[in-house]
Amino acid sequence: MFIILDSFCSKQREILQNYMCGDRVFKQILGEIEEELLVLEDDLRAVVDTKIRLIKKPLENMINSGGKRLRPAMVLAAARFGEYDFENIRSLAVSVELIHTATLIHDDIIDDSPLRRGIASIQSQLGKDIAVFAGDYLFCKAFELFASSDHFNMLRSVSKVMYQICEGELKQREDLFNTDLTFKEYLYRIRRKTAILFALSSEIGARASKAPTKTVRALHNYGINTGIAFQIADDLLDFISEDKKLGKPAGADIREGVITLPAIYALKYSEHREHLKHILSNRNINEDEINEAIEIIKKSGGIKYSESMAKRYVQKALNSIETLPEIPIKKVLMNISSFVINRSM
Amino acid sequence: MFIILDSFCSKQREILQNYMCGDRVFKQILGEIEEELLVLEDDLRAVVDTKIRLIKKPLENMINSGGKRLRPAMVLAAARFGEYDFENIRSLAVSVELIHTATLIHDDIIDDSPLRRGIASIQSQLGKDIAVFAGDYLFCKAFELFASSDHFNMLRSVSKVMYQICEGELKQREDLFNTDLTFKEYLYRIRRKTAILFALSSEIGARASKAPTKTVRALHNYGINTGIAFQIADDLLDFISEDKKLGKPAGADIREGVITLPAIYALKYSEHREHLKHILSNRNINEDEINEAIEIIKKSGGIKYSESMAKRYVQKALNSIETLPEIPIKKVLMNISSFVINRSM
Repeated sequence: MFIILDSFCSKQREILQNYMCGDRVFKQILGEIEEELLVLEDDLRAVVDTKIRLIKKPLENMINSGGKRLRPAMVLAAARFGEYDFENIRSLAVSVELIHTATLIHDDIIDDSPLRRGIASIQSQLGKDIAVFAGDYLFCKAFELFASSDHFNMLRSVSKVMYQICEGELKQREDLFNTDLTFKEYLYRIRRKTAILFALSSEIGARASKAPTKTVRALHNYGINTGIAFQIADDLLDFISEDKKLGKPAGADIREGVITLPAIYALKYSEHREHLKHILSNRNINEDEINEAIEIIKKSGGIKYSESMAKRYVQKALNSIETLPEIPIKKVLMNISSFVINRSM
Repeated sequence: MFIILDSFCSKQREILQNYMCGDRVFKQILGEIEEELLVLEDDLRAVVDTKIRLIKKPLENMINSGGKRLRPAMVLAAARFGEYDFENIRSLAVSVELIHTATLIHDDIIDDSPLRRGIASIQSQLGKDIAVFAGDYLFCKAFELFASSDHFNMLRSVSKVMYQICEGELKQREDLFNTDLTFKEYLYRIRRKTAILFALSSEIGARASKAPTKTVRALHNYGINTGIAFQIADDLLDFISEDKKLGKPAGADIREGVITLPAIYALKYSEHREHLKHILSNRNINEDEINEAIEIIKKSGGIKYSESMAKRYVQKALNSIETLPEIPIKKVLMNISSFVINRSM
């Protein structure tokens, strides 16, 4: 039983509801979060309702293109382990989504991505130069929301997380075409690039609603492990997806020199590892070579290994919140964790 | 009598001292700021002492390339109108310089600038993609410093200012090749792009040291007016400088379609305004046309007009602090204001 949180865009309520499954109690709880997530959609749209014509439409399109809103969902869910008050955490939930969206925009500049969520990325629409400030704009708005909230004392955590996300992005760039990359280095990268924002989301939800320190810590760990599972699964999509499903072309990571877990495994254990190394370190790789690399990686068992690692991190996430009170929202968190790897398996 | 604050880089103490002029009392006061600015140089270097090899050296070079440190100087000077304590404002002074440096890095991406302060810009060294995160890194570090200081309640102002800087940068982009640009629109842009960070610097210095509200407001206005004067003068450099002096090629603004005050004046009053309009709206302008445009603008009196406007804003800056107590540091502020336009006249 998984929640498939594929879109919380208010215009797509039907889609959302079609995706829902599970028992009655579960639906009821998601319903509660769903209503709030719909309110957040309006908040998000208000943020991008800027006077700056140049970025208004592209940002609106990006916000409306159906992000999964996993991070705001985590804020809302985690907050229920304390003294829950939606208005108290509303701007925090919006802020984490803004930070996420801003990193996506800047990420697409680094990756030269033509597509994001199936629509043209901001950098491909407007050029890298404008995309820089479109991302900056959202970062600043996120900070403004945090700073204007009752929780500006959390800004230290937020700025640290943002700084670590930068580290992760730059580490990825540093590691391009590095076929000697270890699992440990990969983990360092995805932890920073992805997992810490999940951790921040669940942590600040709990902190804002004055949950006990032990609960805050548990939810932080839950976020980290879910985030790692998410990124491993996201990296797997590059091997198995078609353009339409993923919203970006398959094999993109290999083309760009981004070495992910299936490749790391194959580079160590495949009988063709020397040949694979040769292909993956080639900065002018062609389509045939990409397909050849994918085949070698698949045959090595790298996909299966990565799937099992993703599952292991989901398990770690579930273990992290094992001792938390058995309130209904706990199941939502468990399901989010399972969902994040469900997209690719 | 002007202070020529051309560099506070600690390795260039001699240069700094060579630049100093003025009477004994004045020197004494600058000496006090100078020592503190040298301490800040170490703080700035500590910030860029990152484990991320990819950006470490370029950021170090950028920090060491002799920025004028006008904004930290304003923080230090403004703070002396309250209960002065260097340690209390140290991280604020570093933060404003980091925000400034980050905007320069992102600005160079927008402008495609090959040079910054006479050395290769980060985007030309490492590409636009890495420059994005190098800028983000400094933004995040600035926020982290603010959030970790005793003044995290100022983060609301800081995030608002950063957001407005984005607006200014995007407005500039929106207005490229727009030969119908008005003085009012130009002022809106440079106020956001440049002046509000000066205003923030002098304002937070005063606020942090608990200066009276009236003083804080006066110093805010001083910063705005100095910033506007600075940007008008900076834009003038594009017409009169050589590559070496400016650290970037002359005529760059015209080539990129950035319409500045001398052009706005000439587009209104030159007898050749129709021809000028034709040249300045051309996205494929050549060297001869750039030189022709500069000549038309010079002959129109656009340079002289802009110089007089810059001087008018310096005067406004001086008027802003007229009623402040006659403590020695006031002269430093007056001299900074005069200096910012002195570079181009």
